[in-house]
Amino acid sequence: MERAGSVLAFDADDTLWHDLPRYLGLEARFVELLAEHGEPDALRARLDEIEIRNLERYGYGPKGFLLSMIETAIEVSDGEIDGHAIRRILEWAEVLTEQPVELLPGVAETLSALSERHRLWLVTKGDLFDQEAKIASSGLADLFEHIEIVSQKDVDVYRTILTRRGVAVEDWVMIGNSIRSDVLPALALGARAVHVPHDESWHHEEASIDAASSERLLRVGDVKDLLSAEVGRWLSEK
Amino acid sequence: MERAGSVLAFDADDTLWHDLPRYLGLEARFVELLAEHGEPDALRARLDEIEIRNLERYGYGPKGFLLSMIETAIEVSDGEIDGHAIRRILEWAEVLTEQPVELLPGVAETLSALSERHRLWLVTKGDLFDQEAKIASSGLADLFEHIEIVSQKDVDVYRTILTRRGVAVEDWVMIGNSIRSDVLPALALGARAVHVPHDESWHHEEASIDAASSERLLRVGDVKDLLSAEVGRWLSEK
Repeated sequence: MERAGSVLAFDADDTLWHDLPRYLGLEARFVELLAEHGEPDALRARLDEIEIRNLERYGYGPKGFLLSMIETAIEVSDGEIDGHAIRRILEWAEVLTEQPVELLPGVAETLSALSERHRLWLVTKGDLFDQEAKIASSGLADLFEHIEIVSQKDVDVYRTILTRRGVAVEDWVMIGNSIRSDVLPALALGARAVHVPHDESWHHEEASIDAASSERLLRVGDVKDLLSAEVGRWLSEK
Repeated sequence: MERAGSVLAFDADDTLWHDLPRYLGLEARFVELLAEHGEPDALRARLDEIEIRNLERYGYGPKGFLLSMIETAIEVSDGEIDGHAIRRILEWAEVLTEQPVELLPGVAETLSALSERHRLWLVTKGDLFDQEAKIASSGLADLFEHIEIVSQKDVDVYRTILTRRGVAVEDWVMIGNSIRSDVLPALALGARAVHVPHDESWHHEEASIDAASSERLLRVGDVKDLLSAEVGRWLSEK
């Protein structure tokens, strides 16, 4: 089967499988565990602040989130939280590190169909060890010609990947749920982007889209929409 | 300058710069912090056990080590350790995540000289975010034609890298301090290896070398020895 169409690069977390819901689930347990030390909204806000500040120290992923929960628990309790409560937080690691990923509806069939006409890449941001485990558990790895795990997604990172693999900007489409990490840097590079919203987004990943880029941007309802005839024509353009 | 010689792939931690000493320094502080809960040797042994068991959950790197110290502190204190003590452990993160790396003696000059005759790669195992920060702080990045950060070093991982980059096994030499991660898998692949011992090695990285592989294995005292005429001839063979 000829695959002369554009290279389609997919984001992973919350584009192909649920990820943020796991974090939100643990945040809910965290708020419950620390209930005597603050109101839910205040606890959530403080955890969020500490988590974002710690991105510079820990990067993205489960380990940094666990460390940020522990740090927040100590701070909001003025150091009075004991080892038993912190052990609970450590036990939650299992939710993030050992449960297989849950694919979003239609993802496996859609990628399988697209792989007949396009070269597919996976370009995912986060913790190397964590991302490898999720990719393995997804069962999708064989559909991708190339898998790239990066610590940050920006114009320079995308440019480096395209240069190293000899793919022209006009032949490349980035597809993902994050406007900040997937859509905007791809558009800034001169490539095309497809925004696939997820029901839940971390506000840290939110950003507004410059209307000027709209010709190179497509919005779909979910990944399955990539198989429609209209989207198919757009994806095959150069 | 022609660079027809073999591709030299360097390990990073404890081959080009000190890494384990940072961890050992924190282990010493950990033993001091937990002194009322156990003898130094027993505390060290328990931390080591928990750290190795957690490699499956967290992989290598500073965040997993911090989480393992916290888990060990809770366990040896029967949950009685308080938030103030755990805050101390979290503060130690700075040692692992924010201090620039300290290059081993002669590394910068040696790599610079070798780069005139060889293509140099960096192949390092660990946490993506942590390794990128250390590589940036080393000032060595521009000397490498290729940098590969992997979560595990074994025969399959090395084979995949060589295949993807079109380098023949006989043209490739892996250079590092870890017999288990650097030397043995390179020899098993049919490539050559240079063992550069570091004063301190984590016993988890120790292993014995099969004497049968000795023709493809060279042992040097330190990285500077790679510039000797004799080693130069060995490195340039095919």
